Amino acid sequence: MTHHDAVSPKFSFGLWTVGWTAQDQFGSASRPAFDPWEYLPRIKEAGADGVTFHDDDVAPFGTDDAERETYFAKFKDVAEQVGLTVEMVTTNTFGHPVFKDGGLTSNDRSVRRFGLRKLLRNVDRAAEFGAETFVMWGGREGSEYDGAKDLHAAHQRYAEGIDTVASYIKEKGYDLRIGLEPKPNEPRGDIFLPTIGHALGFIAELEHGDIVGLNPETGHEQMAGLNFTHGIAQALWAGKLFHIDLNGQRSIKYDQDLVFGHGDLTSAFFTIDLLVNGFPGGGPRYDGWYHFDYKPSRTDHVQGIWDSAKANIEMVTMLAEKAKAYRADAEVQEAMQAAGIYELGEPTLAAGESVSDLLADRSAYEDFDAEQAAERNFGFVKLNQLALKHLIG
Amino acid sequence: MTHHDAVSPKFSFGLWTVGWTAQDQFGSASRPAFDPWEYLPRIKEAGADGVTFHDDDVAPFGTDDAERETYFAKFKDVAEQVGLTVEMVTTNTFGHPVFKDGGLTSNDRSVRRFGLRKLLRNVDRAAEFGAETFVMWGGREGSEYDGAKDLHAAHQRYAEGIDTVASYIKEKGYDLRIGLEPKPNEPRGDIFLPTIGHALGFIAELEHGDIVGLNPETGHEQMAGLNFTHGIAQALWAGKLFHIDLNGQRSIKYDQDLVFGHGDLTSAFFTIDLLVNGFPGGGPRYDGWYHFDYKPSRTDHVQGIWDSAKANIEMVTMLAEKAKAYRADAEVQEAMQAAGIYELGEPTLAAGESVSDLLADRSAYEDFDAEQAAERNFGFVKLNQLALKHLIG
Amino acid sequence: MTHHDAVSPKFSFGLWTVGWTAQDQFGSASRPAFDPWEYLPRIKEAGADGVTFHDDDVAPFGTDDAERETYFAKFKDVAEQVGLTVEMVTTNTFGHPVFKDGGLTSNDRSVRRFGLRKLLRNVDRAAEFGAETFVMWGGREGSEYDGAKDLHAAHQRYAEGIDTVASYIKEKGYDLRIGLEPKPNEPRGDIFLPTIGHALGFIAELEHGDIVGLNPETGHEQMAGLNFTHGIAQALWAGKLFHIDLNGQRSIKYDQDLVFGHGDLTSAFFTIDLLVNGFPGGGPRYDGWYHFDYKPSRTDHVQGIWDSAKANIEMVTMLAEKAKAYRADAEVQEAMQAAGIYELGEPTLAAGESVSDLLADRSAYEDFDAEQAAERNFGFVKLNQLALKHLIG
Amino acid sequence: MTHHDAVSPKFSFGLWTVGWTAQDQFGSASRPAFDPWEYLPRIKEAGADGVTFHDDDVAPFGTDDAERETYFAKFKDVAEQVGLTVEMVTTNTFGHPVFKDGGLTSNDRSVRRFGLRKLLRNVDRAAEFGAETFVMWGGREGSEYDGAKDLHAAHQRYAEGIDTVASYIKEKGYDLRIGLEPKPNEPRGDIFLPTIGHALGFIAELEHGDIVGLNPETGHEQMAGLNFTHGIAQALWAGKLFHIDLNGQRSIKYDQDLVFGHGDLTSAFFTIDLLVNGFPGGGPRYDGWYHFDYKPSRTDHVQGIWDSAKANIEMVTMLAEKAKAYRADAEVQEAMQAAGIYELGEPTLAAGESVSDLLADRSAYEDFDAEQAAERNFGFVKLNQLALKHLIG
Repeated sequence: MTHHDAVSPKFSFGLWTVGWTAQDQFGSASRPAFDPWEYLPRIKEAGADGVTFHDDDVAPFGTDDAERETYFAKFKDVAEQVGLTVEMVTTNTFGHPVFKDGGLTSNDRSVRRFGLRKLLRNVDRAAEFGAETFVMWGGREGSEYDGAKDLHAAHQRYAEGIDTVASYIKEKGYDLRIGLEPKPNEPRGDIFLPTIGHALGFIAELEHGDIVGLNPETGHEQMAGLNFTHGIAQALWAGKLFHIDLNGQRSIKYDQDLVFGHGDLTSAFFTIDLLVNGFPGGGPRYDGWYHFDYKPSRTDHVQGIWDSAKANIEMVTMLAEKAKAYRADAEVQEAMQAAGIYELGEPTLAAGESVSDLLADRSAYEDFDAEQAAERNFGFVKLNQLALKHLIG
Repeated sequence: MTHHDAVSPKFSFGLWTVGWTAQDQFGSASRPAFDPWEYLPRIKEAGADGVTFHDDDVAPFGTDDAERETYFAKFKDVAEQVGLTVEMVTTNTFGHPVFKDGGLTSNDRSVRRFGLRKLLRNVDRAAEFGAETFVMWGGREGSEYDGAKDLHAAHQRYAEGIDTVASYIKEKGYDLRIGLEPKPNEPRGDIFLPTIGHALGFIAELEHGDIVGLNPETGHEQMAGLNFTHGIAQALWAGKLFHIDLNGQRSIKYDQDLVFGHGDLTSAFFTIDLLVNGFPGGGPRYDGWYHFDYKPSRTDHVQGIWDSAKANIEMVTMLAEKAKAYRADAEVQEAMQAAGIYELGEPTLAAGESVSDLLADRSAYEDFDAEQAAERNFGFVKLNQLALKHLIG
Repeated sequence: MTHHDAVSPKFSFGLWTVGWTAQDQFGSASRPAFDPWEYLPRIKEAGADGVTFHDDDVAPFGTDDAERETYFAKFKDVAEQVGLTVEMVTTNTFGHPVFKDGGLTSNDRSVRRFGLRKLLRNVDRAAEFGAETFVMWGGREGSEYDGAKDLHAAHQRYAEGIDTVASYIKEKGYDLRIGLEPKPNEPRGDIFLPTIGHALGFIAELEHGDIVGLNPETGHEQMAGLNFTHGIAQALWAGKLFHIDLNGQRSIKYDQDLVFGHGDLTSAFFTIDLLVNGFPGGGPRYDGWYHFDYKPSRTDHVQGIWDSAKANIEMVTMLAEKAKAYRADAEVQEAMQAAGIYELGEPTLAAGESVSDLLADRSAYEDFDAEQAAERNFGFVKLNQLALKHLIG
Repeated sequence: MTHHDAVSPKFSFGLWTVGWTAQDQFGSASRPAFDPWEYLPRIKEAGADGVTFHDDDVAPFGTDDAERETYFAKFKDVAEQVGLTVEMVTTNTFGHPVFKDGGLTSNDRSVRRFGLRKLLRNVDRAAEFGAETFVMWGGREGSEYDGAKDLHAAHQRYAEGIDTVASYIKEKGYDLRIGLEPKPNEPRGDIFLPTIGHALGFIAELEHGDIVGLNPETGHEQMAGLNFTHGIAQALWAGKLFHIDLNGQRSIKYDQDLVFGHGDLTSAFFTIDLLVNGFPGGGPRYDGWYHFDYKPSRTDHVQGIWDSAKANIEMVTMLAEKAKAYRADAEVQEAMQAAGIYELGEPTLAAGESVSDLLADRSAYEDFDAEQAAERNFGFVKLNQLALKHLIG
């Protein structure tokens, strides 16, 4: 993972983000739709170097093959002219009602076969565009009622589907990795692979799990009340942070897809701190694209699309600067030392120490003064206050 | 996993459940404490065949070694007389303030060494009692502030700790498996391994992961708004449902530890349906203990301890009968067929079908009528209504 | 409030419920649309005696006046033929993008004037149809960003709007009461009047609050983790439960609009217990319609619309029977007595007792044995277990 | 309400905040306890001018009368010496097990009488200390099981209790107002008066509601996923924001009581913006104390108590400066204008305009171009980005 310099991250937008016309569950569109390629110059202008899309974003579901190729050719041309990289491609297996019970785990086998074909076709498209990542969000894989699924079969079919796609990628020799995108719920009552953790556990059971990793989204983890930075840290630890979706969410509620940083700001700061500075004691780094999967507010019109697109990039840029200053601050470093941040990097057993050695070490247990050790003032609040002073200082 | 007949599950209680004197965050104890062994006859009388404990439940933290052995001997004697199996043992690495930043992931290395020693000592105790499962709940492993941890180091240390315990079990030849217990938060702002999924992903990275599995708790998953039955299904699919903690929780809030079935009743029905009936199309089964990790309400006194203990068993028993009748009902079976529950068991690719074959099958894609397929009435609501009529009928 | 016999509740459905074609945030419609009046015979057949609608459900936004009258006349005719009462009418001030920042609290004054006119026009329609209740759900009144509103002005405008509608009703002499419908969020990040409580507090400040009350919805309160039965109890206590929306929700997440009882079943039981049995010690009763505001699942087709509609009624009917048996059970009554349920009905001060008298009563304080009183076993878990046994027995 | 200059707010701390020894639901104390008065000099030193207490914080439950007076006298002396105002006093009706089912709504009438006496006694104490506000947090008023309460009686008793206390205050001529403190849950499964809204609705039904208002706490509203700034705005609008509890909470989970600003930082900014700048278009202002109800982290020792106390004040101070600069910024003012923030201050009906006038205004409806109006770009995201740039700039 050495694609880019972490110091100047490369930004990309999903075509469906700036292209969202703001039709929602309770109301109709508040913005006009443009042709897919019309968004490209403005995405570039907003400060991004990359764009991503679902197959159906460029050629709507049901477009005949000839027209379809024209659309994609046109899109490719304009992207090249404008200087936008198609770094990721993803497949819509959730919008059309045929997928109402899922694409890979629909109870209807004919739908699963259709879904798989749609995915495989899009793998070719991703390769054609030179994408590095093939994101798979199984938004309709799940249920509202516990009795509606054979849950073992569902996991079997999900694994079969992902493994089939992965084996096809390998067979074709494409330089493409799959990024699973977890989400706890919405539009289904409960979605399979609801969190980063569930996806990691799932990947470990796959046959072709080596090219399958994660595309975690800020708001999706926060919809389950989980800590996004903790989540991507575990994904990094497992070598599985293949791609990332940045956006904003305010507490546990419907999927808000706000601008990054417009949700939980402190969490956003520490996410960027991890992305640009890495773990304090070293370890795996993310060096992929900073991809935004957000929605311009329905209350804003066309002007608001581009104001919000730029706001995403501006937030990352500002937070990156602050995160660097935070880590470079001697007072912070001192507080980190006092808090034992670096001490956690030391293995608990000494180099070469066996369990028997540990059991024989009376200082570790018999002679250990737990009462005194309990009095350590970790100073976590002080450290957090220093972080917040850097953030808002 | 063939310990028991799923038709008549064996029940066990944590000693700390009936033994909780009801001191909580905002108030002092509302019930008297008894000696540990005094609870045993009444646990048996309530209908359980097993009991479990934390080391500190029997001999408080700091008890000197001689007295300690007396306590455990007494406890063992009474358990045997009464006819209670100690099926699981767990370790308190969260109560004493020395563990305020965790046992295995404390930023303080001396605490980690102490925690590891406490765990290893308790492994011996678990083996001495003939327990099958060694549960590890890392309730203090986590943080309130994202800057308070090196998150990579934390996962490294957590893995080091679990692997050390697991390797010790193997070295000693104990017939003991580790069950990790996930929880999203409380008492820490964010706990590491917050859900079943995160624990599954973590185990996949361990050196000795073969004897490490899950001890999921109903309420803990529900505290993150996650579907408990989906969670244990994924754990079963991964061969990792080693033990289970049943209780009740009402929505996303503090850890309630209600009686099983007194939280989300419909979810409880489907949990028991899975445990006693298995997946509709077959697959791995849970055949371990039905362990209750609940708290008698602080508003009840000693009488309420035993009323609530019995209520747990009664709920499982009633739900098990209903779940069996549900599956045996011909109308239900018909609705399950119509809903495609069994169809999900059929692999998406036919036996021997290659990806090329699938790509060549025009009926799967080119000639597939998505509009017509989209009209399928899965009948999920009807099926759910049938389930609820069995539940409340 | 003596419209109906609580023993045989009258049921009604929103036209938009069975008429939902299942287009959601992430996908297009999965069911065909029928003409508004085509739903009426089937609503009746499903067991309902009432129907309700938004203005735009019958005549879409922008329909010209002549056509509009034709639609409503046709609807009225068919409703009468079929034997359905239009018991409530509500106004769509959220679907069209002109209302993207709200109807009565939009920052745009011209939109507020337009919204008010749309509401007033619909008041006449409600009166024409003989509706008893005029529901106002301000789904777009709110914000995503705290800085986007003058929050004092927003409450002023909201009050101005409601008072204008209420004064118009009075002026016209219509026998119509307003039912405000709270919701915490979705489609706005935060909606004004987010809960039953906020609406009650708001009504208390109105000039014409006497004809303004509540139309609480099960799932909306549960989206904030609040207890729906507690909520409607406070509304009843304040004399403000004018109408009710029954449906189902599973934990804190997006607005699910499940069938009533298909969400939190135990809560549904106690809601129906309150509605059909009233408070244990007496007090105000709800005797209005049992109105369902739910959505047939997107995974079901036309058949599923009617299966789910019937499931709502069947759930209420079953729960009502169980709730009556619960209260009639002598063992339950004994447990209620022991738990002090009726004792709570006794005023804390005796009849005629002054504060001075209380202060002079040494038995109340100086001689009160708090330690002994603390030992009371309320038996709440036992009582709850009895309730659950009635529910699932 | 003109006690203080909003520009330099006066800060106060609950004695129980800095005095919390960090015993929690899952572990024992991690810090030593000091005598109540020992905290006072350090509270002053941390930057506060006020202190508040529960009766039992100064003299533990059960202290005999003579000793009790000594404690309070000593506390008063030291507070005066140090220069700390006792601005608020509150009563512990939740800690002792006698209150396990509540103080004013316990099903046990003798407990209610005892609770009322404890409250009345503490009213005298509050008056003796010259407090302005008498906070009442009914933490144990509620239930875990819906059947455990007669919910009408509960509201009757709650109202009786508050009215009795209020009438006593009036009778005695004390210059004291009651501040109710809502909380949705914890330690009870559901607490009565769960939100600001429910308390406002409740107060409207009281006999002596004129001296009863709110003491909202940041984290308590956020535990229900509600917007704290919206909540206090409604309380201000209703003339009921009598006192305020500032702290921090991260999403919907157990009550965290973090340092103010260490929870949802953006929300904290807008809370302070409202407190120090008032509503954009004018209206009622809060001019009371900035009271912190937080807990020093259990991971910190004595040093951490004072680091965290200071952090609260520092956060308010920093946010107040930023909020002032935000409002003073011409670009912000322009964006506020464009967004219609001030336009919302204009009544929807013109001065003297009747409903008939509105109905006759064709420009409001018949000639209103909704499609064009729908195209307004409110620019809310741009405005929010400006706010965040002020916050972190």
